[in-house]
Amino acid sequence: MQSVVHEESILGAVKGEAEKIDRCMKDDLDRLKPDLDDLLLEVLHYGLFNGGKRIRPLLVILASRLCGRRDDDAYRLGVAFEYLHAATLFHDDIIDKSETRRGKQSVYRKFGTIAAILAGDFLHAKAMATVGTFSGQDGLTVFCKATTGMVDGEFMQLRNAAKHNLSELDYYHAIMGKTGLLIAAACEVGAIFAGGDEQSVKALREYGIHLGCAYQIVDDLLDYLGHSEKTGKAVGNDLAEGKMTLPLILTINRANETDRNQLMQIIEDNNARALCFGEVCAIIAKYGGFEETRKKAVDAVEAALNMLGRFSEKSVGLERNLLEGLARYVLAREK
Amino acid sequence: MQSVVHEESILGAVKGEAEKIDRCMKDDLDRLKPDLDDLLLEVLHYGLFNGGKRIRPLLVILASRLCGRRDDDAYRLGVAFEYLHAATLFHDDIIDKSETRRGKQSVYRKFGTIAAILAGDFLHAKAMATVGTFSGQDGLTVFCKATTGMVDGEFMQLRNAAKHNLSELDYYHAIMGKTGLLIAAACEVGAIFAGGDEQSVKALREYGIHLGCAYQIVDDLLDYLGHSEKTGKAVGNDLAEGKMTLPLILTINRANETDRNQLMQIIEDNNARALCFGEVCAIIAKYGGFEETRKKAVDAVEAALNMLGRFSEKSVGLERNLLEGLARYVLAREK
Repeated sequence: MQSVVHEESILGAVKGEAEKIDRCMKDDLDRLKPDLDDLLLEVLHYGLFNGGKRIRPLLVILASRLCGRRDDDAYRLGVAFEYLHAATLFHDDIIDKSETRRGKQSVYRKFGTIAAILAGDFLHAKAMATVGTFSGQDGLTVFCKATTGMVDGEFMQLRNAAKHNLSELDYYHAIMGKTGLLIAAACEVGAIFAGGDEQSVKALREYGIHLGCAYQIVDDLLDYLGHSEKTGKAVGNDLAEGKMTLPLILTINRANETDRNQLMQIIEDNNARALCFGEVCAIIAKYGGFEETRKKAVDAVEAALNMLGRFSEKSVGLERNLLEGLARYVLAREK
Repeated sequence: MQSVVHEESILGAVKGEAEKIDRCMKDDLDRLKPDLDDLLLEVLHYGLFNGGKRIRPLLVILASRLCGRRDDDAYRLGVAFEYLHAATLFHDDIIDKSETRRGKQSVYRKFGTIAAILAGDFLHAKAMATVGTFSGQDGLTVFCKATTGMVDGEFMQLRNAAKHNLSELDYYHAIMGKTGLLIAAACEVGAIFAGGDEQSVKALREYGIHLGCAYQIVDDLLDYLGHSEKTGKAVGNDLAEGKMTLPLILTINRANETDRNQLMQIIEDNNARALCFGEVCAIIAKYGGFEETRKKAVDAVEAALNMLGRFSEKSVGLERNLLEGLARYVLAREK
């Protein structure tokens, strides 16, 4: 089977599906319109339609097709994951005091904290009801566990904010909460919706976990090695904020005492963190911390790809190609 | 049938059930404990156990018994309504900048805005999952509609904050969002959980709507006529904040032009509102606005009681008595 998918064709297919997903969300809002306050509708439109790639709904749709179901209800189910994703972004932007999101004002900056909290709550409830409607109690349980797990992860981050001796395991726990759980739930719920057997549901869930982790590891790597003109954001943010991500954690584990002490001194000093980005990069490079981080991402992508092995029927070749392509694209992306 | 229930026996029965409901929530948190961040658990304990009367879970339990189901799962379902109620309070206290709640610091003051947002989101998801588990898709749909309706109501309030010509209809819409929808949903979901027939489900829902409205009308009346030593809060808050509640709305509808103009002048002036409480009360009293408001509450309680007529079996006499007593207690309460 042809499994190499070129970047352009992946992005093309993703774009086509994203348009269908956007149409489905617009239909949802049109249905809600008679019952909703105009300001709430305005906030929802503003917050939901921002050129997002709609990866989470897409995963729901592809997973459901791999498990043999091809009707359009998959889109209606899929958008629930975009609603929940948007709800968490509305609330996260308040929490992180983020001024912008995808190049425009964040919801809380544009409409205020109250509107951002409430619109997030609205989407939260709408998402739960949608998942319950289309994937039943099993799907809802998975979805709610992902949600509560995400909150739990944020609390851990809140407590760990000042903790600079995070283990690799702490890191994986944090990125699961941030990205992995919802991606995994999208794949799992898509499979449940389609009536997939237990092994298929599990395989797709695992695919999602590995995909989500790979994505976040690469994201954290780009914060050190990305080019601002491509990523659209400055490098070194994580270090400046004192966030312990994989390149740093792996390096601290390997460095000799002198280098480790120097790193820890920088990390524990607010001013030094902002000023010593080059120095920290040099120490990470000395110990191969960037290569090692990238290797972890490659391993995660490999693990994701392995999970797709069981879906070998020709009839789902296209969908499998897309899921493989998405996983490989994570490694290729520069922004 | 004996339908007069004395205040003490009502409160006694409510207290006994509240203890069982609290035990059920503690068991829930114990089950969650191994998987939850310690800080999140602390916030949940603090926010959930504050001497609340647990009216919403109690309504779930009583409604389910009226419809013929008597097992303890009703408690496990009922607590979902306390979770959602608490989640909205966590978020509302941020929105209203409330320093205290039931005599202690509000969650956001004690643990910060981030923790209050996140813990609210957690309870929100936990509530949805619980309702889905115990009352199925029909119950979940009702529950989610109540949630989205509550948010919609808050948006309306947000837009109406500066609007001082609210109609009586606007007022009812606002109090439905604030109190009525969730109370009605508690009754309806309890009935659905018990497999009640369509007419019973509808009757209990209507009971809840009228009960919730009566409660809120009396609350708004106490803001004018309550005794601080009993209510624990100063009178005149609503007027000072420019909130248009029923005594004022009914009076504006009836007053002659001179009095109406005087009222509107006071209402539209931030300083005057705080200073002219006595003057406003005198005008309301002149037009019988307080009596008329109280009459609306009495009518709502009557309407609630009428909905219980169909549950005439002796076997549910105790539960019906309690629901009748709760409705009558709304009128008797002084705090």
